[in-house]
Amino acid sequence: MNTLPPILLSCLAVLVTFASAAAQSPQANRPNVMVFLVDDMGVMDTSVPFLTDAKGNPKRYPLNDYYRTPAMQRLADQGIRFNQFCAMSVCSPTRNSIMTGQNAARHRATNWINPAKDNAGPHGAPDWNWEGLKKSDVTLPGVLSDCGYRTIHVGKAHFGPENYEGSEPLNLGFDVNVAGAAFGAPGSYYGEKNYGHRNKRAHHAVPHLEKYHGSDTFLSEALTIEAKKQVTATVQSGEPFYLYFAHYAVHAPFESDPRFADHYDDSGKPKNAQAFATLIEGMDKSLGDMLDHFEQLGVAENTLVLFLGDNGSDAPLGHQHQVACAAPLRGKKGAHYEGGMRVPLIAAWAKPDDKNALQRKLPIPAGAIQSQIAAVQDLFPTITSLTECDVPKDHVVDGQHLQTLLTGEADPNRAETFLMHYPHGPHRSNYFTTWRDGDWKVIYHTLPKEKTTGGFIQFEGGHYELFNLKDDPFESNNLAGSHPQVLRRMMIGLIAALEKHDAVYPVDDAGNELRPQLP
Amino acid sequence: MNTLPPILLSCLAVLVTFASAAAQSPQANRPNVMVFLVDDMGVMDTSVPFLTDAKGNPKRYPLNDYYRTPAMQRLADQGIRFNQFCAMSVCSPTRNSIMTGQNAARHRATNWINPAKDNAGPHGAPDWNWEGLKKSDVTLPGVLSDCGYRTIHVGKAHFGPENYEGSEPLNLGFDVNVAGAAFGAPGSYYGEKNYGHRNKRAHHAVPHLEKYHGSDTFLSEALTIEAKKQVTATVQSGEPFYLYFAHYAVHAPFESDPRFADHYDDSGKPKNAQAFATLIEGMDKSLGDMLDHFEQLGVAENTLVLFLGDNGSDAPLGHQHQVACAAPLRGKKGAHYEGGMRVPLIAAWAKPDDKNALQRKLPIPAGAIQSQIAAVQDLFPTITSLTECDVPKDHVVDGQHLQTLLTGEADPNRAETFLMHYPHGPHRSNYFTTWRDGDWKVIYHTLPKEKTTGGFIQFEGGHYELFNLKDDPFESNNLAGSHPQVLRRMMIGLIAALEKHDAVYPVDDAGNELRPQLP
Repeated sequence: MNTLPPILLSCLAVLVTFASAAAQSPQANRPNVMVFLVDDMGVMDTSVPFLTDAKGNPKRYPLNDYYRTPAMQRLADQGIRFNQFCAMSVCSPTRNSIMTGQNAARHRATNWINPAKDNAGPHGAPDWNWEGLKKSDVTLPGVLSDCGYRTIHVGKAHFGPENYEGSEPLNLGFDVNVAGAAFGAPGSYYGEKNYGHRNKRAHHAVPHLEKYHGSDTFLSEALTIEAKKQVTATVQSGEPFYLYFAHYAVHAPFESDPRFADHYDDSGKPKNAQAFATLIEGMDKSLGDMLDHFEQLGVAENTLVLFLGDNGSDAPLGHQHQVACAAPLRGKKGAHYEGGMRVPLIAAWAKPDDKNALQRKLPIPAGAIQSQIAAVQDLFPTITSLTECDVPKDHVVDGQHLQTLLTGEADPNRAETFLMHYPHGPHRSNYFTTWRDGDWKVIYHTLPKEKTTGGFIQFEGGHYELFNLKDDPFESNNLAGSHPQVLRRMMIGLIAALEKHDAVYPVDDAGNELRPQLP
Repeated sequence: MNTLPPILLSCLAVLVTFASAAAQSPQANRPNVMVFLVDDMGVMDTSVPFLTDAKGNPKRYPLNDYYRTPAMQRLADQGIRFNQFCAMSVCSPTRNSIMTGQNAARHRATNWINPAKDNAGPHGAPDWNWEGLKKSDVTLPGVLSDCGYRTIHVGKAHFGPENYEGSEPLNLGFDVNVAGAAFGAPGSYYGEKNYGHRNKRAHHAVPHLEKYHGSDTFLSEALTIEAKKQVTATVQSGEPFYLYFAHYAVHAPFESDPRFADHYDDSGKPKNAQAFATLIEGMDKSLGDMLDHFEQLGVAENTLVLFLGDNGSDAPLGHQHQVACAAPLRGKKGAHYEGGMRVPLIAAWAKPDDKNALQRKLPIPAGAIQSQIAAVQDLFPTITSLTECDVPKDHVVDGQHLQTLLTGEADPNRAETFLMHYPHGPHRSNYFTTWRDGDWKVIYHTLPKEKTTGGFIQFEGGHYELFNLKDDPFESNNLAGSHPQVLRRMMIGLIAALEKHDAVYPVDDAGNELRPQLP
């Protein structure tokens, strides 16, 4: 069988499945869920405008005219997009938050996990959770698998380091793992380069895709074909599915996807930024292919799609602390500004149908924009609640379900807060915590003085930055000096949030804990 | 007309109204709401068991067998009761929280309001809001009145001191005021004593009830007759009503209601505790009469009843810091223990009807118990949301709506917290703040040393008390010494909550603010 081209296999599976899917649809009283997670994709890396003007209408910025994401537009047109959706500023923290429903300050995988060695950093919290997720942890796929879902992992895992339990999604509640391993960056996106096997980036070689080695199948395409196969098989079995489709795209290396390269030839952007855009477009094609596949299988009406990025943009378009890569937002992946943690979220039924029983229980308005603050840890309670799967009582969930927000309403019972804790360095920003509460955001820098411990420069501006994101959404005006009472209140909120999450802290040269200080 | 006995007048009104009510019921697409607020009634002052055993089933305690509240039982049988519903520990704070949706720490009427002089106390927060509510404040009846409701005040007001705007409910959004004034304790419950007029307690004489002076109509009964009249007139007019029926009962003076006195003759309880029980029973009769009246008017299906107390019990049955008046809970009105702030809440449609359109939108299960934490400031958003009345955008609402909880479900998006701030003395407990977060409760005493400033004794046990209310619901085991990390975390939460509500603080002898200190 493996000698047939993948596309034929896929079509065959569709044909075989169609009748059985149609036959079982009356009993399909549990939704399928696809979490479609894009690596290093910020809220501006798309042709779909997420940011809004003062009246709440979507507003286009130049980056929206650079990128091409028609499938995201299709999904946004039939569903709701969030314009204040927050992720952790780097990837493993977000991924483990999706898996556990916990803020990274609680699950303590607060840094990207270096697969090979503990990367706490020279002043990093020694008790952070470098090991990541363990077999015994309560996870979203574990909960869903226990209650009858087929749980499918396709793409990047990065839940734990090499030779630890967390490196293997099958240890963490997934019934199937395609291409997931301990690392984040793929060895290569090119089939011709065997996705990294047998070359100098072999330590990051993407597993399980041998059949495409030597072919011209781009990694995003290979993952899509495999994801479709897994979905087809699950629909045939009659089980509902939870598909966690986590693209390696658009993480570095910025290898140009030849299918889309000519779209950006005349952009005037640097070559690596053009390659980044092709990765975006290839990921977007994958999204469209998945939506088509659900329709072909007859399960689109029963399938909820949650599309999101895992941290701010990594577009190679400027300095990490400037308004550049995620313009008009300040900062990018890893930074303490909004560009580091604001990601796209689109939620929609794969095919809207207002007569569908599941959709009547959770009606998602077409083309809507949700402006309330939400975050990656909210996916866990949203999905467990929607699928009516029980979470072990002693598992702490920090997230709050999004059901009300998904219907386009405001949910006044949700806290309008977001905690982002990064007790590590060196990275693009070091040893910082941010706390959002309503319109205000405070940033605390544990080690603000300029110094060169470990060979990097700390934040130079003092312990505190304070912004009013309503008046100053692009963080240009630090109010820490002029608003001492707000600063104090926000810092107390930040400290309380860290305590509540039982966070760990950076340390000084002697190893003493450095907790945030009030101004 | 006023020479006819009140009961005949009332019946006549019912007959006149009946046809018109029936005729208008098809257009009745907005719910009527009755908030039935009992003064100084704690969660144990009733024959209805609110507390539950480990399995969540209601558990009777001796006090449940002492009191007689069949109408509360009727309401509880057709609706839901809350067993962790929290009020401020004294009355004006709770009343102004119901009016504004704000925690008392924010509206700053943090003490009961002495009608005649500022009672901050010798170390009391100088900037507390002794003046209470003002004409310009956003209030629940004001919001409802603006959107077409007839807003009726009957009974005790106590929103502000004499000769200030807050003394008169008509200044605060009510269209009608019967019997409400600046004070809390009634001059007398007896018609024969003219409810205080022309006797030594004339400064607390209940207004507007002249027609009952000299009669044997007990105050609770007179208020009930007047409330029924107002409801009848409103139903005739075709407007929906918001009835805030705030009994003076069961506040001191503990005058025995002769209609029920013989029920307690053989109880072995002190005379004043027997009188207290008659006040409870008279209030309960009033509740039953109102329910009957709604039925007779044909509006019961469209009328939501929210029954609650305004602070912990004031039953004269033992010391304020012991397990006595609210046994098995520790403490009573004014105290920093649960007996000071745990009150009954029952929510039900006045006549359940699962075909009624309003009830289908908010189905309340019969005989249910809700164990999630909720509080008095939650009424405002619950009622404005249910009536679809818009709240001015710049009005801060601390409460969270109870819609999910009222249906018997858990609402995981609600914070499981409660802040109670009392920067005053002398009272039963002085200068304290409590903070509940999940199972934990911390109590902070600003002035813990024994001293006699102002002639009263402060708390003697140090700054901190810490209880795990799941393991120790009756607050017998102070864990402040043995659980320093939990204490620290809870104190940080307490301090953050005070800051978030922009609270005011007690002061030292020199007038310097005394903010809570971390252990």
